[in-house]
This record gives sequence, C-alpha cells and structure tokens, in this order.
Amino acid sequence: MDKIINRLKRIEGQVRGVQKMVEEDRYCMDILVQISAIQSALKNVGFSVTERHINHCVSDAIKKGEGQESIEELMSVLKQFSK
Amino acid sequence: MDKIINRLKRIEGQVRGVQKMVEEDRYCMDILVQISAIQSALKNVGFSVTERHINHCVSDAIKKGEGQESIEELMSVLKQFSK
Amino acid sequence: MDKIINRLKRIEGQVRGVQKMVEEDRYCMDILVQISAIQSALKNVGFSVTERHINHCVSDAIKKGEGQESIEELMSVLKQFSK
Amino acid sequence: MDKIINRLKRIEGQVRGVQKMVEEDRYCMDILVQISAIQSALKNVGFSVTERHINHCVSDAIKKGEGQESIEELMSVLKQFSK
Repeated sequence: MDKIINRLKRIEGQVRGVQKMVEEDRYCMDILVQISAIQSALKNVGFSVTERHINHCVSDAIKKGEGQESIEELMSVLKQFSK
Repeated sequence: MDKIINRLKRIEGQVRGVQKMVEEDRYCMDILVQISAIQSALKNVGFSVTERHINHCVSDAIKKGEGQESIEELMSVLKQFSK
Repeated sequence: MDKIINRLKRIEGQVRGVQKMVEEDRYCMDILVQISAIQSALKNVGFSVTERHINHCVSDAIKKGEGQESIEELMSVLKQFSK
Repeated sequence: MDKIINRLKRIEGQVRGVQKMVEEDRYCMDILVQISAIQSALKNVGFSVTERHINHCVSDAIKKGEGQESIEELMSVLKQFSK
C-alpha cells in the first residue's frame, strides 16, 4: 500500500497547487485542466483499491462460497465511484 | 474565490484522511466511498470554476464578438473534465 | 444538425448490436466494451449539442445582457450530463 | 438476460426519440437532458453485465485458482467503462 500512499501524497500536493493557482488568480481554464488531472489520479487510486479488494476480500469470500454478498457490496460502491 | 479556496482546503484534508485510512489498513470499500466523496467535491469545484469562467471571460469575449475561440477552448477543457 | 442525426442513427445501430450480442450470449467483457463505445459516442453528441447551444442561445442571451439565467441553466444541465 | 434486452430496447427507443427531437429542432437543453437519461440507463445496463460477469466467469476462475488474469481483464474493461 506504500505506492498508494505516495500517490495520495502527490494528489494532496496537487490540490494545494490548485489552491495556489486560485489565490494567484490564474486563468480559469488552466485551473480546470489541473482539477481534471487530479480527478484522473484519484480515479486511478480508486481502481487500485478496487483491484486489491477483489484480489483479497472478494476472492476469499467467493472461495468460501460466500461471494454473493461481497459482490453486491462491490457493485454498489462501484456505482457510486463511477458517477 | 475565498469559497473555492475553502472547499479546496477541505478536499486537501479529505485526501489526507484517505492516506490515514490506507495506513491504518481500513476496509477497502470504506476507502473507496471516501474517494468517491472527494471526486464529487472536486467536480463541484470544477463546475464553480467553469461557471465563473463563462460568466466573465467567455461572456466578455462574446460581447466583443470574439466568442468563437473562447467557446472552443471551453468545450475542449470541458471534454477533458468530464471524462 | 444532419451530422448529429447521423451520429444518433449510428448509436441506435450500436445499441441494436449490443442487443444481438446479449441474445447470442457473447462474452460479457466484449459487451461491456461495446457499451463503453456507445457511451463515448453519446457523450460526443452531448458536447456537440452543448457547443451549439452556447454558440446560439447562450451567446444571444449574453449579448442582450440576459446571460445570467441562461448560464445557470447551462451549468445545471451540464452537471447532470457529466455525472 | 431478457431483462437486459428489454432495457436495451427501451434505450434504442430513447435514442430514436432524441433523433426526433433534433429533427424537430427542439430546445438544446431538453435534448441534453434526454441524452443524460440515456447515459444513466446505459451505465446501469453496463453494471448489470459487470455484476453478472463477476458472479459467473470471475467467480469460476477464482474458484479454480485462476482469478488473477480474470480480475486484471475485469479491471481494464471497468477503467474504460468508467471514463
């Protein structure tokens, strides 16, 4: 998970960067491009967390024959994440 | 723009919160729900920036009869933002 | 608008193609890739309609000094479209 | 899968409806709202196909100890689908 924490730290830095851009009254479209970059980075972190979850928790549940509930929970969170 | 900076500070705090959740090895699906919340918050900031941009830069360009270029730029950034 | 109607006809054909794939019990992941392609095509149509709207209705409203309401409506529809 | 085919038929009808709106030169923002509705409907079909896929193919692969490849494929298609 160290890799994920590093990516989140970079995202934190990007969010601070956008704050600075707003404070310095930078061009709106440049700010929006930066926000888009943060969204992509966050989405990638979300997918890494999801993949990890399927590889561990969901797989274990399926092997124990208890996959149904685990898959339903996964789908409901994915729906929220993909809005 | 103070309101936007405050929202970005809150987002920065939320990103730090997710880092902590990852460090504490919290449940993946709870982490993903938090990431979704940050994405929504970022999207709202993006829309505020866009609205401000249309109200000022784009409107001014249109009034001067130079809207075309400004609208094309807006659309290209919006496409990236809505991916 | 002929171009947009042609794109919508192609999308209609793609949706029928997915129906056939489901009926023929094709591989789920291939079906999902096709659905993603339709979503991209629809998104592009949406952006064309939006650009046209800004170039005409919103621009006219702004020139008449009545941009505010028009821009608010645009933003509220864009928020729904970008979900 | 009958339910999914019915939903795709309804989506096909909605796409035809949008064509008609464009032909009748209806208000752009009303057209965009309709396109958003189709996108939501398509997204829901995509999630149903995904859930079905995880419940069958992915679960079977995991039970046979061959989950890794199956999960990687799922994630790569999900990334495309959630763009």
